[in-house]
Amino acid sequence: MKRRVRVGFQGEHGAFHEQAAGKLVRLPFETVPFPTFPELFRALARGKIDYAVAAIENTLAGSIHENYDLLLKYRLPILAETNIRIVHNLIAAKGVNLRSVKKVFSMPIAHRQCTVFLEKHRTWEIVPYYDTAGSVKMLVEQKVPDGAAIASKLAAERYGAKILVPDIGDEKENYTRFFLLARRAPKRPAGAAAKTSLVFATRNLPGALFRCLSVFALRDISLTKIESRPLRGRPFEYLFYLDFVGNPASTVAHNALKNLEEITEFVRVLGCYTHVD
Amino acid sequence: MKRRVRVGFQGEHGAFHEQAAGKLVRLPFETVPFPTFPELFRALARGKIDYAVAAIENTLAGSIHENYDLLLKYRLPILAETNIRIVHNLIAAKGVNLRSVKKVFSMPIAHRQCTVFLEKHRTWEIVPYYDTAGSVKMLVEQKVPDGAAIASKLAAERYGAKILVPDIGDEKENYTRFFLLARRAPKRPAGAAAKTSLVFATRNLPGALFRCLSVFALRDISLTKIESRPLRGRPFEYLFYLDFVGNPASTVAHNALKNLEEITEFVRVLGCYTHVD
Repeated sequence: MKRRVRVGFQGEHGAFHEQAAGKLVRLPFETVPFPTFPELFRALARGKIDYAVAAIENTLAGSIHENYDLLLKYRLPILAETNIRIVHNLIAAKGVNLRSVKKVFSMPIAHRQCTVFLEKHRTWEIVPYYDTAGSVKMLVEQKVPDGAAIASKLAAERYGAKILVPDIGDEKENYTRFFLLARRAPKRPAGAAAKTSLVFATRNLPGALFRCLSVFALRDISLTKIESRPLRGRPFEYLFYLDFVGNPASTVAHNALKNLEEITEFVRVLGCYTHVD
Repeated sequence: MKRRVRVGFQGEHGAFHEQAAGKLVRLPFETVPFPTFPELFRALARGKIDYAVAAIENTLAGSIHENYDLLLKYRLPILAETNIRIVHNLIAAKGVNLRSVKKVFSMPIAHRQCTVFLEKHRTWEIVPYYDTAGSVKMLVEQKVPDGAAIASKLAAERYGAKILVPDIGDEKENYTRFFLLARRAPKRPAGAAAKTSLVFATRNLPGALFRCLSVFALRDISLTKIESRPLRGRPFEYLFYLDFVGNPASTVAHNALKNLEEITEFVRVLGCYTHVD
């Protein structure tokens, strides 16, 4: 019997990362939780897991530079991407109802994203917790009679808790983009409709970025992301994150990348991958 | 006697935001803490404070889109910017020494940024808290005999606590960029060496961004930031954050902005401001 593939993710079981794994992995798989992103990347690099799921940006919180740094450090190729709508729910152990709630546990970022809802319940104590799904797990295990958590529907299902109030986030347009990472690039490359992510660095000269973007614009290659990141130790240099629609295996994208290498200090393709809806 | 200006910030007294206020405000001032950014922006818009200090991006965590959204919503002009190095310290109440520490309180992001240090002390319990400076305040007020906090030097000074281990962050290149916001743009505009921040939106056509950047490149205007943000409700549109060196009051920058308006759906200048070292 073939063993199931092992997919690592950051957080506790029931995390939004695990929900992303369900969309990104087509094979039968088991999920392996890791407390932090560096531990997740290290485990994949050392072959302790087969794949890893890592958030790369959120529509409210922005790009996760720490994970870009880990992508550069470990050179783990991106196989696929997907977006997950972050739906915050008020969740409690079975038997607890809305009127008995006195404390709300979650990660501070989840509390912040539910400000309008929480302001209607000003008597509730806001208790920061290290993980959204982990707070549901704790409430159920310890049978907390006056506690609720803010977490995903998956977390409520996973720990046999119930949703007291669904979808309590202030901003419905709250999406996180996740990457599926492997140890090695796949033998069968992504199709022509794939996306490619890269990082490059250029000197801070007027028009430097404009020249870099020209290598894509002149070839009608569509960009889906561009972001500058100042390199603090090197005050006149910037890192850029860039995503484009296309595959470096195609002549046109290959030529664009060759051209980019001519005019930059550093270029690294992070992966060419398919988008999963 | 003239009253001191009131400067609002997010967090508890001793927060990195308060340290930024000390660099950004030249007049005698008092600081007013607010629990969340929406409350801070609302207070400034309603005239309850004279200025506000708000983080806009961090070299590890990226741009804070929520604060860009608040800048667009409240139209509060930017007067000045500064960068603060985020130095995490292990802090405890006086009389507590390193050997008595059993629990470490802080915001989860601060714990995450001190992973290497905390891994050397695996017996310590990691306790998430809603604020870095707030955790120092709590340790001192409650005279916690076995607790330490991760926070700024300013927080240790403010609450009469002591630094057990200085500068315990993994990544020394950890800087946050802060804006000083006012209710109205100053009468005396910023000088020619000022920076300008703007937000614009364009249709997702190949080369659309390239055309937008050409209005700056053709006039030798230097960009210091560019970032795309997908508009989730409108799948073919993007918001862009752009900073350039220059003043819209100058002919060259004025023309560039006029030109940008011709080819975009939406342009908003967030402010023209001086950089404070």
